Amino acid sequence: MTIPSERLSGDLPVVDAESVVDQLEPDATVLVSGFGRVGYPKAIPLAIADADEEFGLTVVSGGSVGDEIDEAMVEAGAIDRRYPYQSAGAVRRSVNDETVAFADRHIAALADDVQYGGFVDPDVAIVEAIAVGEDWLIPSTSIGHTPAWVESVDQIIVEVNRAQPLELTAFHDNYRPGTPPNREPVPLSAPDGRIGGPRIEFDSEALTAVVETETPDSPYEFRDPTDVDLEIASNLQSFLVEEVRESSLYDDSVRVQFGVGSLGNALMGALADADFGDRDLVYFGEVIQDGLLDLLDENQLHAASATSFALSSDGQERLFENASRYAEDVVLRPADLSNSPTLVDRFGVIAVNSALEVDLYGHVNSTHVDGSRMLNGIGGSGDFTRNSPLSVITLPSTAVDGDISRIVPMAPHVDHTEHDVDVIVTERGVADLRGTSPRERARAILESCAHPDFEPALESSLERADANGGHEPHDLETAFSWQE
Amino acid sequence: MTIPSERLSGDLPVVDAESVVDQLEPDATVLVSGFGRVGYPKAIPLAIADADEEFGLTVVSGGSVGDEIDEAMVEAGAIDRRYPYQSAGAVRRSVNDETVAFADRHIAALADDVQYGGFVDPDVAIVEAIAVGEDWLIPSTSIGHTPAWVESVDQIIVEVNRAQPLELTAFHDNYRPGTPPNREPVPLSAPDGRIGGPRIEFDSEALTAVVETETPDSPYEFRDPTDVDLEIASNLQSFLVEEVRESSLYDDSVRVQFGVGSLGNALMGALADADFGDRDLVYFGEVIQDGLLDLLDENQLHAASATSFALSSDGQERLFENASRYAEDVVLRPADLSNSPTLVDRFGVIAVNSALEVDLYGHVNSTHVDGSRMLNGIGGSGDFTRNSPLSVITLPSTAVDGDISRIVPMAPHVDHTEHDVDVIVTERGVADLRGTSPRERARAILESCAHPDFEPALESSLERADANGGHEPHDLETAFSWQE
Repeated sequence: MTIPSERLSGDLPVVDAESVVDQLEPDATVLVSGFGRVGYPKAIPLAIADADEEFGLTVVSGGSVGDEIDEAMVEAGAIDRRYPYQSAGAVRRSVNDETVAFADRHIAALADDVQYGGFVDPDVAIVEAIAVGEDWLIPSTSIGHTPAWVESVDQIIVEVNRAQPLELTAFHDNYRPGTPPNREPVPLSAPDGRIGGPRIEFDSEALTAVVETETPDSPYEFRDPTDVDLEIASNLQSFLVEEVRESSLYDDSVRVQFGVGSLGNALMGALADADFGDRDLVYFGEVIQDGLLDLLDENQLHAASATSFALSSDGQERLFENASRYAEDVVLRPADLSNSPTLVDRFGVIAVNSALEVDLYGHVNSTHVDGSRMLNGIGGSGDFTRNSPLSVITLPSTAVDGDISRIVPMAPHVDHTEHDVDVIVTERGVADLRGTSPRERARAILESCAHPDFEPALESSLERADANGGHEPHDLETAFSWQE
Repeated sequence: MTIPSERLSGDLPVVDAESVVDQLEPDATVLVSGFGRVGYPKAIPLAIADADEEFGLTVVSGGSVGDEIDEAMVEAGAIDRRYPYQSAGAVRRSVNDETVAFADRHIAALADDVQYGGFVDPDVAIVEAIAVGEDWLIPSTSIGHTPAWVESVDQIIVEVNRAQPLELTAFHDNYRPGTPPNREPVPLSAPDGRIGGPRIEFDSEALTAVVETETPDSPYEFRDPTDVDLEIASNLQSFLVEEVRESSLYDDSVRVQFGVGSLGNALMGALADADFGDRDLVYFGEVIQDGLLDLLDENQLHAASATSFALSSDGQERLFENASRYAEDVVLRPADLSNSPTLVDRFGVIAVNSALEVDLYGHVNSTHVDGSRMLNGIGGSGDFTRNSPLSVITLPSTAVDGDISRIVPMAPHVDHTEHDVDVIVTERGVADLRGTSPRERARAILESCAHPDFEPALESSLERADANGGHEPHDLETAFSWQE
């Protein structure tokens, strides 16, 4: 792996952000890089937010991006439509009052959704890079869907960010599958294998502007694990250790994925103590969070594959200072590969994701508070939950200081169905739902996962439902009023 | 392709069905062949139903099987647990009154669910074949999950059915993916390619009994298309012709899948008139239904891939009389390949499935009447709907002679989420949901798909929901009482 010595190579159309904004159609559909609040463009979004012109853009990212887009541009009213995942206050408020139209998609499918049409008709890609040439770029702290983005547009604008170290080159393995129906199988033969290189190539005529920046990402802040987080982690760990011992899928190694967020980060950390014998622990997921750096530092993790370094500022500093060491064990891929259904299947990745609430039959709401108000989006949770040989949903049994139960009779929004969910883990315990009927699932979840404060109400609800009969009984009249 | 001349080859443990039953543990977990009500074992199930011994078996099939299992065995009380798809009256009643425990899974995932544990702990496989040797068999009218079944057990029992012609050999292409994490990509490079052969091989020590039978399948009966079916077909056809012209995915060929059933069968027939220019029409789905034979007879179909001949008795007769001709264009595969997420993706298969009801935000109920009573199971609809570049759900706008709307404010059971559904087609029209927000989806479905009789009630329901605010607004108090 050769680390480039220059940020800019060849004859490049270097301009300032404001002149890019002057050229932008006010209703353009813009594909932006960025995933896990890192690796997104910064200067042009701020210039759009500051511009006099009135924009009504459609902005499509791979995953969540930083405040320059989802706060500043949204507050300036420059975004009419925003797809498909967000995690900032301003955009969330606008999505929920419908001043910004939002559509939620699986991360793995998004590259094709955009490139092959129907979802949006993209005009321009604005992507962050650590280095750029006349027909190539090297992405920064995330890859996301940049390989698909540059293939989907006639106009590519690159922000070269000097705040992102050139050593990030060593992590990147870019690959874009071909076009159906002649799409070849992804030739990756191991979770930590490499099939591409650091550069993303494009048609040199499409590169219309290069903007130089030097602005750090505005990344995640993880809260410290709560007692409940640690109890969930402990329950998960015991379950996984037992499962790994019993299943032939994990004779030599254990492949795991964890969802994005503070709970996911805490769960990763808990794996450090897990006794998996002499099996290699391998991470094959969407994002590298701080907990994974800890595991790498402690030699507890054999390898990690993801599409983004969704680290805290501290974690990012640690990564940047030790990039070449971490790059021995860590690969970043495009998001349609990090989340690829077929790779999750072929590598037999255990999926561990969190949720807002779970119903007694195993349906999971990951996105909509009270069934109506969007939180962030489904992200990649469906890619892993559906295709994993073992799908675990972890969540606290209650929310709002114990005032409401996250175990409910009927989920008011369903992101993951009973068909995809194998195991539920709360701080109370573990419900293994494999091979169970809906009534058996309800019993297991009630007894092993629900908080005792809510068991009587859940029991009553089940009794009312049961009186109506059927395979998966509901009392639709009271399904959403059970706590009253 | 050499068609075998003998049904039985080598030194085989040929016995009668009753003596197999005598050896069977009363609480065994039995994997049976069969898919689309064909290719399932017949003599041993009838012998179990007639036996004096009390059985409480767990019976796992690839898809739906015939009356010998799902009527006779169920009525004899011999089945305690039945996974994961059924389509017969007796078993459906028992599933809904919980005398038979039932768990619903995606077809594509079931082979691994069973082989790698957690879902069931299988004891014996009872599979139908047209021919058998000491360490191989050739399946009959369906393949289903037989390749995984014989790898999952120590005891294999084969029913050799002389009513199924040996010429079926020519259709079969068997392949079982390796074990994760070293599972290689499926090497299939075209929808009609072949990567295996007619034989399914197994450890000769596992073959404990061979039973000879001569009983036809008890297959589907398709009703004639209704006027509403034909209007749905016409709307679908217009939409697909336009889509195929505009998308680069279909420059040379159109790959489609249709769901099992009378509507799916009618929709297949309607493709005969579609003007796809000089593009090849290719079927890549779960079952071959009568409508596909019509297309083959009319030279309208380039090739077809499936796991089962789910034909009517007439269709079966037509197939058997012309097997060698049809086998030039038709391949049967194991169900985890016919429904493979990665093959649906790589071949860019358009998915067309039906549903019980659809809500205004695009969530689909395929399985549970009134949210509680199981109809058949999700089958393979999720495999295709999730992984297709274009997922279409077709259904009549009303049910029960127009008394109830199949377009509802909130689905009381969700099998396919808004994240997976692109287009809804009813006899009223087409709602293209790609790139739309939930409120936009509601407007499109209401205006293009709902029946006018129910538009006012749906409008009122939307207004009540809208008053609650949020990205995907619901009025949970009245969500299920909107028609009152």
